[in-house]
Amino acid sequence: MPLVSAVSINPLADGRQSARALTVRRGVQILLREMGLATVPEMTLASGRRADLVALAPDGGIVIVEIKSSPEDMMADAKWPGYRDYCDRLFFATLPDVPQHLFPDDCGFIRADGHGAAIVADAPEHRLAPARRKAVTLRFARFAAGRLLAAEWASGEPPSQP
Amino acid sequence: MPLVSAVSINPLADGRQSARALTVRRGVQILLREMGLATVPEMTLASGRRADLVALAPDGGIVIVEIKSSPEDMMADAKWPGYRDYCDRLFFATLPDVPQHLFPDDCGFIRADGHGAAIVADAPEHRLAPARRKAVTLRFARFAAGRLLAAEWASGEPPSQP
Repeated sequence: MPLVSAVSINPLADGRQSARALTVRRGVQILLREMGLATVPEMTLASGRRADLVALAPDGGIVIVEIKSSPEDMMADAKWPGYRDYCDRLFFATLPDVPQHLFPDDCGFIRADGHGAAIVADAPEHRLAPARRKAVTLRFARFAAGRLLAAEWASGEPPSQP
Repeated sequence: MPLVSAVSINPLADGRQSARALTVRRGVQILLREMGLATVPEMTLASGRRADLVALAPDGGIVIVEIKSSPEDMMADAKWPGYRDYCDRLFFATLPDVPQHLFPDDCGFIRADGHGAAIVADAPEHRLAPARRKAVTLRFARFAAGRLLAAEWASGEPPSQP
């Protein structure tokens, strides 16, 4: 049971995502966590585009998962190839009622619901150059820490006087 | 005003820190954030020891701040030199009523209260080797993301069905 029941006052919810997209996100987060990857949602890359989920493996490998909540959502996206420049593997993830044939063959494909997800097609690897990997990792680290601090300050403050 | 007023149900509070230590931590977090550093509290290092605050600068520089809430707290710590192996600069931080002369001369020194902090003595730089920097940065990133996800799941869940 959530400690804070009204989603609208959850400092970690940014209000930009549809319920369907959030369902996919949660399922993918459960799967990636089981696989040992740490994830952050809605991270803005150096290109200015925002990745739905960026995941960091124990060996430093970087995965991006783009979430598509409907056929229209996928068909409207002409810019997804740009994500390849910021990860070693690129996946799309969607709900069971969105046809797989709408998604590019040369990316990974994940089916998700709110309870978990499964990798239907693995993603080809295109290893990042070391300097780019370093930059994305640093950005991920600072972004996650910044959101964590904001959540800490929003959800309860330590006493301000000794 | 905190959204969740009872500290005991704050999923981001681990209950191990005294009120005095949390006051210092908050002041230092405010200062470091103003300086552009992203911080995570209570991060376990590869050595198994837990650093009170680890901070990551925009250029990848790594700072550790050890928080001492009392003279006894400082005098009981014989293991602090080990933190140097995981950062470029090492600081101690404490409250105004703890004497500075108890702290080592060859570390930085920060005075803090719950509203902010000031660097009284800067820390000498001892640059990490690239492999160690990479490892600490990756650990920081995965740790921050893991805590962020735990907070997200504890504070309000997206709907589990589309």
